[in-house]
Amino acid sequence: MKKIGVIGSDGLIDDKILYIAEAIGADIARRGMALLCGGRGGVMEAACRGAKKAGGLTVGILPSLDKSQANKYVDIIIPTSLGYARNSIVVSAPDAIIAICGSAGTLSEIAMALNYKKPVVLVDGTGGMAEEVSKIRFDAEYAGLVHHAKPSDAVEKAIKLIL
Amino acid sequence: MKKIGVIGSDGLIDDKILYIAEAIGADIARRGMALLCGGRGGVMEAACRGAKKAGGLTVGILPSLDKSQANKYVDIIIPTSLGYARNSIVVSAPDAIIAICGSAGTLSEIAMALNYKKPVVLVDGTGGMAEEVSKIRFDAEYAGLVHHAKPSDAVEKAIKLIL
Amino acid sequence: MKKIGVIGSDGLIDDKILYIAEAIGADIARRGMALLCGGRGGVMEAACRGAKKAGGLTVGILPSLDKSQANKYVDIIIPTSLGYARNSIVVSAPDAIIAICGSAGTLSEIAMALNYKKPVVLVDGTGGMAEEVSKIRFDAEYAGLVHHAKPSDAVEKAIKLIL
Amino acid sequence: MKKIGVIGSDGLIDDKILYIAEAIGADIARRGMALLCGGRGGVMEAACRGAKKAGGLTVGILPSLDKSQANKYVDIIIPTSLGYARNSIVVSAPDAIIAICGSAGTLSEIAMALNYKKPVVLVDGTGGMAEEVSKIRFDAEYAGLVHHAKPSDAVEKAIKLIL
Repeated sequence: MKKIGVIGSDGLIDDKILYIAEAIGADIARRGMALLCGGRGGVMEAACRGAKKAGGLTVGILPSLDKSQANKYVDIIIPTSLGYARNSIVVSAPDAIIAICGSAGTLSEIAMALNYKKPVVLVDGTGGMAEEVSKIRFDAEYAGLVHHAKPSDAVEKAIKLIL
Repeated sequence: MKKIGVIGSDGLIDDKILYIAEAIGADIARRGMALLCGGRGGVMEAACRGAKKAGGLTVGILPSLDKSQANKYVDIIIPTSLGYARNSIVVSAPDAIIAICGSAGTLSEIAMALNYKKPVVLVDGTGGMAEEVSKIRFDAEYAGLVHHAKPSDAVEKAIKLIL
Repeated sequence: MKKIGVIGSDGLIDDKILYIAEAIGADIARRGMALLCGGRGGVMEAACRGAKKAGGLTVGILPSLDKSQANKYVDIIIPTSLGYARNSIVVSAPDAIIAICGSAGTLSEIAMALNYKKPVVLVDGTGGMAEEVSKIRFDAEYAGLVHHAKPSDAVEKAIKLIL
Repeated sequence: MKKIGVIGSDGLIDDKILYIAEAIGADIARRGMALLCGGRGGVMEAACRGAKKAGGLTVGILPSLDKSQANKYVDIIIPTSLGYARNSIVVSAPDAIIAICGSAGTLSEIAMALNYKKPVVLVDGTGGMAEEVSKIRFDAEYAGLVHHAKPSDAVEKAIKLIL
C-alpha cells in the first residue's frame, strides 16, 4: 500500500488551514493511499480526520511512548520514544510528502525528506514553512524534489511523483 | 487498533517454526488486532502471511530505506534507515510482544520491550531466544512482564495481558 | 566541557570555505571548547583539522558503523548506524551550532537545532544553507535562536550565546 | 582514540560493585583508552570517576536532552532525546564492551552489541545480567563475541579483543 506523508503545524492553527488539511487527508484516502503523519494535533489531526471520513487508513509516528498523545483519527499508532528524531521516520516511511503550513519541526522534515530523495509538495497559500521553503535555492540534486501545488491539486501532484 | 508485535528469527528456519509463526499471525488477525514486526523474512514473513490469509493488517518496521526488503505480506511498510536501532520501535509500538525462536536481534527486542514495560510472551518449543530467555532471572520490576505460552495459546495470553 | 557543533557541506567545496571552516575549528579549540560534528569530510574535516592544530578535542557522530568514514582529525568517533537520523544527535549534543555553507543535510540540522532550542550561528559569505536560511521567517520562539556572524566572529558569537 | 564501553546498573547498587566499576574505569584510562557509557549513575558514574581519577577521558550518551542527568565525571556529554533507543549508540560507538551487573537495559545493550559484532566482556562476580547472560547459548556467530573475566582482568581482556 502506497503512503503519503502529511506534515505541518501541531497545535492551534486557523480554520482555513485545518479545512485544507482535512480535504487533503480525504483526497489521500479516496485515491487508495494510506496517510502517514506525526500523529499529533493541528494539521496532522485535521488530515487524519479527513482520511477517516473518506474511509482511509491512517498511521501516526509519535515522538513519545504515550499513545494518548495521538489524535483520535490515527488507526495505527507507532509510539517511539525518539523525541524529535522521530521526524526522520515521518519522512523516510512515505512515498511522497505534502507540507501544509508548519514551523521548525516541519522544516526539519522537509529537509530530511530531501536527504531521503523523497518528493515534497508544498501547499500554496498555507503559510509557514510550506511557503518559506520556496525562498530557498537548493542544489540541483534536491531542487527537482521540491514541488508546489494548490490545495486541491496537492494529492494529485504527489501521486504523479510516486508513480 | 491494538497491535501485537511478533519478533523472531530472520532467514532460514525450519518448517515447524514457520508453521507456528503463521498460525500465530492468523490468530492475531482473527482477534481483530494488527500485527507489527520488523518486516523481514523468517518468522516475520510467516506471521505476516498468516495474518493476511486471515484478513488482518500487517505493519513492518524496516532497518533500511529499501522497501524491497519487506516481505510481501506487509501492508504498511515503514522504512527507517536506523539499522538495528529500529528494533527499539519494533517493541515500543505494539501493546504486547510474542517471541518465536530468534537470536541476538530478538534478545535485544525482548530486553528493550521490558525497558518499555511491555508484556512479552515467549512461545514454548520454538528454541532460540524464546527459550533461552527463560533461564534469566530478571529484577522484580521486569520479571512480571515475562510470560510463557504454548503456540496455540500465545495470542490469547498476549491479549489478556493487554486488556 | 562545553561543545560547539560545526555543521556544513560534506564533499568537495572550495578552498575559501575550507579555510573559513579550519579557522573556526581553531577558534573553538583556543576558546577551550570541544568541537562536535558529523565526523565526515568537507567543512567537518576542515573544522576538525583546525581544532587539532590548535590543540583541541574533536567528536564526530557518524551515520554508519564504519569508523573509517571519519575524517582523520576526529578524536572521539561515535559510529551510530542511524543514517541521516544521526543529524538529530549532531545538534542535540552541542551547546551551540555554527553553520558553514551546507545543503539539505545542513538544513535538517539547523531546523532540528531550533526544535532543541539550540542557538545557531550562520556564517556570512559561505553560501549554501548558511545563507539561504536567512531568507526564512521563523516563528518568534525560533527566530531569536538564529544569528549571523562574519567568519572571524562566529565562535565569539556562539560562546556569548552559550554563556 | 580507542574506546571501551562500560555498561551496567544505574541507581543504587552495593559498594563492592561500585568499587569494581571504579577500578575498571581507572584501568581503561591507564591503558590510554576513552571510556564511553550511558552517562548516568551507578556503575556508569563509578566507572567515570575511576577514569577521571586516573586522568582519562569519559563520554556519556544520555537518553534525554537534559545535560544535568549526566554524572559529574563525564567530560563529553552527548544528550540525545532518544530515550532507551540511545542504548544502541552506547554499544555501536565503542570498540569493545565491559558489562558489570545490570538489568534489562544492560541486557538490551549486550544483545545490541552482538548485533554490531562488538566483543563483550562479562565481569564475573558482579551479578545481574553480567552473570545471567552466561546462561544463554548464542548462535555460533555471536557466541565467539561473549567473554568472561575477573574484575582485575576485564580491561586487559577487552583490549586484547580490540587489537
